[in-house]
Amino acid sequence: MSDSSPRPQAAEPHLFIVFGGSGDLMRTKLLPALWHLVDQGYTGPPSQVLAVARRPQFTDATYRQWADEALTAAGLERRSQGTTWCSRCLHYHSLGEETPEAFAMLAQRIEGLEREHGLPGNRVVYLAIPPQSLSQTVQHLGAAGLNHSPGWTRLVVEKPFGQDLQSAQELDATIKQHFTEEQTYRIDHYLGKEAVQNLLVFRFANSIFEALWHRDRIASVQITVAEQSGAEGRATYYDGTGVLRDMMQNHLAQLLSLIAMEIPTSLDAHAVRDEKAKVLRSLRPINPRHVVLGQYTAGEIAGARVPGYGEGEGIAPGSTTATFAALEAHIDSWRWHGVPFYLRTGKRLPVGARQIVVNFRCPVLAMFERFPEAIIEPNALIITIEPDEGFEVLFGVKSPGDEMRLQTQRLRFRYDDVFPRLPEAYEALLLDLLHGDQTLFVRIDEVLEAWRLFTPLLQADLPVHPYAAGTWGPAEADRLTVPTGAACML
Amino acid sequence: MSDSSPRPQAAEPHLFIVFGGSGDLMRTKLLPALWHLVDQGYTGPPSQVLAVARRPQFTDATYRQWADEALTAAGLERRSQGTTWCSRCLHYHSLGEETPEAFAMLAQRIEGLEREHGLPGNRVVYLAIPPQSLSQTVQHLGAAGLNHSPGWTRLVVEKPFGQDLQSAQELDATIKQHFTEEQTYRIDHYLGKEAVQNLLVFRFANSIFEALWHRDRIASVQITVAEQSGAEGRATYYDGTGVLRDMMQNHLAQLLSLIAMEIPTSLDAHAVRDEKAKVLRSLRPINPRHVVLGQYTAGEIAGARVPGYGEGEGIAPGSTTATFAALEAHIDSWRWHGVPFYLRTGKRLPVGARQIVVNFRCPVLAMFERFPEAIIEPNALIITIEPDEGFEVLFGVKSPGDEMRLQTQRLRFRYDDVFPRLPEAYEALLLDLLHGDQTLFVRIDEVLEAWRLFTPLLQADLPVHPYAAGTWGPAEADRLTVPTGAACML
Repeated sequence: MSDSSPRPQAAEPHLFIVFGGSGDLMRTKLLPALWHLVDQGYTGPPSQVLAVARRPQFTDATYRQWADEALTAAGLERRSQGTTWCSRCLHYHSLGEETPEAFAMLAQRIEGLEREHGLPGNRVVYLAIPPQSLSQTVQHLGAAGLNHSPGWTRLVVEKPFGQDLQSAQELDATIKQHFTEEQTYRIDHYLGKEAVQNLLVFRFANSIFEALWHRDRIASVQITVAEQSGAEGRATYYDGTGVLRDMMQNHLAQLLSLIAMEIPTSLDAHAVRDEKAKVLRSLRPINPRHVVLGQYTAGEIAGARVPGYGEGEGIAPGSTTATFAALEAHIDSWRWHGVPFYLRTGKRLPVGARQIVVNFRCPVLAMFERFPEAIIEPNALIITIEPDEGFEVLFGVKSPGDEMRLQTQRLRFRYDDVFPRLPEAYEALLLDLLHGDQTLFVRIDEVLEAWRLFTPLLQADLPVHPYAAGTWGPAEADRLTVPTGAACML
Repeated sequence: MSDSSPRPQAAEPHLFIVFGGSGDLMRTKLLPALWHLVDQGYTGPPSQVLAVARRPQFTDATYRQWADEALTAAGLERRSQGTTWCSRCLHYHSLGEETPEAFAMLAQRIEGLEREHGLPGNRVVYLAIPPQSLSQTVQHLGAAGLNHSPGWTRLVVEKPFGQDLQSAQELDATIKQHFTEEQTYRIDHYLGKEAVQNLLVFRFANSIFEALWHRDRIASVQITVAEQSGAEGRATYYDGTGVLRDMMQNHLAQLLSLIAMEIPTSLDAHAVRDEKAKVLRSLRPINPRHVVLGQYTAGEIAGARVPGYGEGEGIAPGSTTATFAALEAHIDSWRWHGVPFYLRTGKRLPVGARQIVVNFRCPVLAMFERFPEAIIEPNALIITIEPDEGFEVLFGVKSPGDEMRLQTQRLRFRYDDVFPRLPEAYEALLLDLLHGDQTLFVRIDEVLEAWRLFTPLLQADLPVHPYAAGTWGPAEADRLTVPTGAACML
């Protein structure tokens, strides 16, 4: 999606530079995504990929071998039928210590590759590195003149963007010294491209739903991002970071803004992100009494015993890092005044799922008064992002037979009943990146507004309640969770 | 459903008297319905059934044999496990000529049966006889004092009620001489009980649909009652009667009033029928230019050749009886002003189906301007009464992948995916009758309002266009049919 014209089929020739090019993200996400883009003809030679890493771990040849293994592990054959995946388009550069000299060397390597392959100087600079290294790397990039090129230069930053409002502002200031907002792509892959676009299409291409999308018809909204996994393998990052920074400030705030946004004037990056930012700006400061935090203890998930958070390797003794959060948010707008938005996310929950439940108001039941046996439940719309992406409308039908008994049934639609393959989040987002479409990337004002909201909670020293792994968080959170299907009262 | 209290389980002891007791309706519908009611314990001894017919065709014993065969033919064993179907509760009375003496004899037989079985004088008088005999039989019933009894007496009349406004008013006057409106049950089995109640529950127990139920959100409504059968076997009745009297004035007018009615104050007979009658009263006189009539010619249905209407046995040579009608109706109310209701019904159509399609308005498409490839179709709600009773919501989803292409998909619900057996229309309506609940029977003002609407069309001498059996009627009707899924225009 370019901002002004229909999307071109193939990306312009470019150099795709990945800092952290021998890391996990490259191995499990970026390489497979690039493979799929090549497979579909969106990119490929003369475009090249340059993996940058500190350690002199690989040569070009051994890196290509490593990449082949990564693709095989992802179920992607190096040369499947019709695929022109180009192993020789992968290059490895060992940066060594982050010094001005090292970046000058890198700049030479980059220009050399561009000359060699006749590239016009279009560059992606993807920072797949730990958050604490971001600022320094950006400064070095700027100092080495890698913030601009004869073509376009686009900088990709992974979440989290900062650790709180102040650090996010500082990081932004650093980036802004060297890169413009139009160059900066803040990726939140959790939102995937399809999921976001499906939400936008669902709301704005279907008049029946948009007609219901306000406080007169909606009683509450529940947003759930549940993980079965624990903090294992990410303890260094996770401990001290916690769920509010890791999930709430970005993923859940983004889902909230997508579900609650006003209708944009267009689907352009500018218009969509304006409306998303407006939602976050309209959020009332969250009452700490409307927040419940938790940390998982040992428990059972899918029949297997799992240890508690505190028992994990790399976790500080007595850590009070929260792995679960539930809260109630309110949007001070004409559309949403009085409608609670319940946000819930945690690790080691019973299922892995991302779901938005829109609970509608009860019908006026006076006419059913003569049927005391008719138990009527409010309608609900369930938007499932994963697993089994799809939509369900819960509605009441009469059970056959003499009495007026109602049952809640589901009108269902599942994507994979209809569509054979949904693209991976990274695949679609990388293509947007190559096409220069920022719509589905997070703008700085959205990031800062979300931090403005959650930073006070980070500083509030809230109690962290234990919950057994495999449960839906501490019992204290139940009041911040809406049961669907509670009967309407006459 | 009684009007004031929860429905009692079993009907009060009664005598179920059927005029036309050896006819088709008794054999194929009423007897099986009674069997099911006995099977479920809603009725049974001491209640009795008295079949009345002109000819001395049967004795009680041979009639019981005939009834057994009818039940077997309907797939109902006389004594299935747990069923206490009572063959000996069936009685046969040969009326002979319709004379005062014959009705006096009948009255004696009735009183005799009631004495013998200790019945309190509750009586159903079901007139399963040709329309032209109704008036005379009712007068005889009244003259013989069979319009009242020590218990309740309820008169059941099949459709059509009259042949036009004047004859309906005359028939009503005759009935009113002897029976009150509260005693009179005008049955339209085509609406079945479940189908009607499902419509009411769908609309009034589900706040999301009622919120959309008006001209701001609905562009048009299409009601279709399609039959595959022709006029064979019913030619004497059908020829000269035609589709406007046979289907449009009753079934389609009823479906229209159910789908368009305002919200009743309760689900009582009085409140529901008030609102249905209001719809019919609010209908604008139908513009004859908005009506297309047709008569089927020879054609093919489900791979089999079928003859044209004019070739049928018992059809007058050169008959211009219409077997198809399509029309556009308008309701002059705040809810529906400007929303066309397209009604369509016919014989020898490609499928047998009863369906209501609610077409919603297009979304505002300005925001999709940058995606000229995004073809957006309006939402629709499809209510299928038969076959495969259920609900579907047509909505747009994005096709996975790079481009903004939309596909119309369906949120589906089908009753028989969830409920094992839906009761037959007659079964449920007879139970309502036995319980004295008139809600789902047609009140006289509804009948007369519908005749007021259609009688001018009967008198208008409209052209009758030929259409081949197995097609959707004459091409002239296409402008009175809304295609679902026409793309919205930017």
